[in-house]
Amino acid sequence: MSQLFTYQQLYSFAFTIFLQIGSTKENASTAAKALLSADLRGVDSHGIARLAGYVRLWKADRVNANPVISIVHETPSTAVVDGDRGLGLVVGPAAMQVAINKAHQVGTGWVSVKNSNHFGIAGYHAMLALPHDMIGIAMTNASATVAPTYSQEKLLGTNPIAVAIPAGKEHPFVADFATTTAANGKLEMLQRKNEDAPGGWVQTKDGAPSTDANELKMGGALLPLGGDKEHGSHKGYMLGAIVDVFSGVLSGANFGPWVPPFPAYLPMPINLPGQGIGHFFGAMRIDAFRTSEAFKADMDQWIYRFKTATPVNGFDSVIIPGEPERIIEIDRRENGIELMDPVVADLDKLAVDFKIEL
Amino acid sequence: MSQLFTYQQLYSFAFTIFLQIGSTKENASTAAKALLSADLRGVDSHGIARLAGYVRLWKADRVNANPVISIVHETPSTAVVDGDRGLGLVVGPAAMQVAINKAHQVGTGWVSVKNSNHFGIAGYHAMLALPHDMIGIAMTNASATVAPTYSQEKLLGTNPIAVAIPAGKEHPFVADFATTTAANGKLEMLQRKNEDAPGGWVQTKDGAPSTDANELKMGGALLPLGGDKEHGSHKGYMLGAIVDVFSGVLSGANFGPWVPPFPAYLPMPINLPGQGIGHFFGAMRIDAFRTSEAFKADMDQWIYRFKTATPVNGFDSVIIPGEPERIIEIDRRENGIELMDPVVADLDKLAVDFKIEL
Repeated sequence: MSQLFTYQQLYSFAFTIFLQIGSTKENASTAAKALLSADLRGVDSHGIARLAGYVRLWKADRVNANPVISIVHETPSTAVVDGDRGLGLVVGPAAMQVAINKAHQVGTGWVSVKNSNHFGIAGYHAMLALPHDMIGIAMTNASATVAPTYSQEKLLGTNPIAVAIPAGKEHPFVADFATTTAANGKLEMLQRKNEDAPGGWVQTKDGAPSTDANELKMGGALLPLGGDKEHGSHKGYMLGAIVDVFSGVLSGANFGPWVPPFPAYLPMPINLPGQGIGHFFGAMRIDAFRTSEAFKADMDQWIYRFKTATPVNGFDSVIIPGEPERIIEIDRRENGIELMDPVVADLDKLAVDFKIEL
Repeated sequence: MSQLFTYQQLYSFAFTIFLQIGSTKENASTAAKALLSADLRGVDSHGIARLAGYVRLWKADRVNANPVISIVHETPSTAVVDGDRGLGLVVGPAAMQVAINKAHQVGTGWVSVKNSNHFGIAGYHAMLALPHDMIGIAMTNASATVAPTYSQEKLLGTNPIAVAIPAGKEHPFVADFATTTAANGKLEMLQRKNEDAPGGWVQTKDGAPSTDANELKMGGALLPLGGDKEHGSHKGYMLGAIVDVFSGVLSGANFGPWVPPFPAYLPMPINLPGQGIGHFFGAMRIDAFRTSEAFKADMDQWIYRFKTATPVNGFDSVIIPGEPERIIEIDRRENGIELMDPVVADLDKLAVDFKIEL
């Protein structure tokens, strides 16, 4: 059913593949690290399981393995970065670095990115700000799988938002979530188990409520966080829309239904209004607001108060965002990363293709 | 059941009251305009209906009618503003102006505010950026009425987020929403009609699911957007938490369960970690990213594509955020603002108290 690998094994494998498709050593390392951060943090759908998908995008000439990433417009606190069709796994960290540099200079940095590709998990990029004593923010648009409230058509991606906030004695607060009720990865888990989805996750291709976990494959759509209007789906739709505008419209990338898909077998949308996929990054220096010490003392108090709140009967405690992922990372770095057989089979095929060892 | 007033009548009434409690003419005008913007936009719970509540806060010495609003820390793109216990209706616009000024200088401006009070609707403050061809962002924390996922205790406010985005031929995109499934105003409407709430809106004081619209009055809590874990309430909780940290922890205001309540009859929390209520404002100059023309052309395309999407059977069309409120404003400016009898009775009492005419 599954097989265990060390982080180093999987990192080396991904690094070698990225190198072989033409990345520089530095970019291959950056990409492998960003990709594997998903496996370490337990977001299995976005990690090494997608390596074959990235390779297929490159084979379809939808990814430039050797991009010249450049700033095309800037002010002291902002920039638009052109990813030159590179891997989002490489473009993301480069753009986040621009935001961090600007925050060092003028307090905050805000970078909208065009002409990029899928960047893995948003949380990885947001967390790059933490060692600089900055709050990090990362978001991205994605190909349309989500129907806004009242829409039959899919017009938005799962458009995740990540916010990483430093603390003192406590571990950092790291929120990272899709702006849908549930991400596609959760539906895939239900499909494997042949189980229904809860209400509010998907709708049919005609826009009717559904609990069929296979709905998306049959032309249906994911639903914005909230599920239906009565439960606030217009708010999830607004959040996804804000991510789309900040990532796509503000940079000159594609937006709405025109965002290119991740699976290379899906056709590109036509009459593209922009270039590639869009991301948006922010970095805010803590001491641009208060002393780092004062902030962290209060942040520690915030975290402590929430995690010691009286829980509902039958539950352990309130979860501090990022805490479950942090614990998984400690475990997986020590005990290895378990991959499902279909994922291992994909990697085996890649190994044969690229004449390397898994 | 209700009575009709012109905008000018209600504005003058609020202006006079703010003047009489000691505001300067300028501040009274700023406050009345911010307060009445809620009535104009159809957010009846946050407008003139709260005027008596603001007066009670002032009588309880929880609001300083004549604040000296100051910048206590700043960088080229950031500031912390001390609201000097002023009305949020006055502190908000002043702090937003600081953000706008900084955006003129370095592309963006970000202002965290402490020592403030309730600021009306978040959307009003975000929209102040629009005439400057900027994206405006506003958020605020509020007293704890919301239980995080798995918590029996109320630790967060409804913590709204507003984002206003300029367009070209189309009207601006204005999102303004509480980070809960439903705001308290909607529960009050159900209480009046003696109706149940949908699932996912509230929980009992022990944390059990409930559909009783009176739950909050009996010690229960509002629920984060999503309602329960299965429907993504941890995402609503994370959003509310981010608003709390940006508004409260980053500025040195109170946060979590320590945020002062709006009703003056409720006791102040004890062992306050900060000062007053916190807000967070952002302004991003469009042309700090792209030319305003290019951005607005794409934004127009975005809006047009979404509002012309094929709707689900039985629904008119996808709603562009801010559009319903804009239409209500046109109507109410022309045809007047209808106030429910209990609200009129409150205003009548104020009129007697302050020896003025309604």
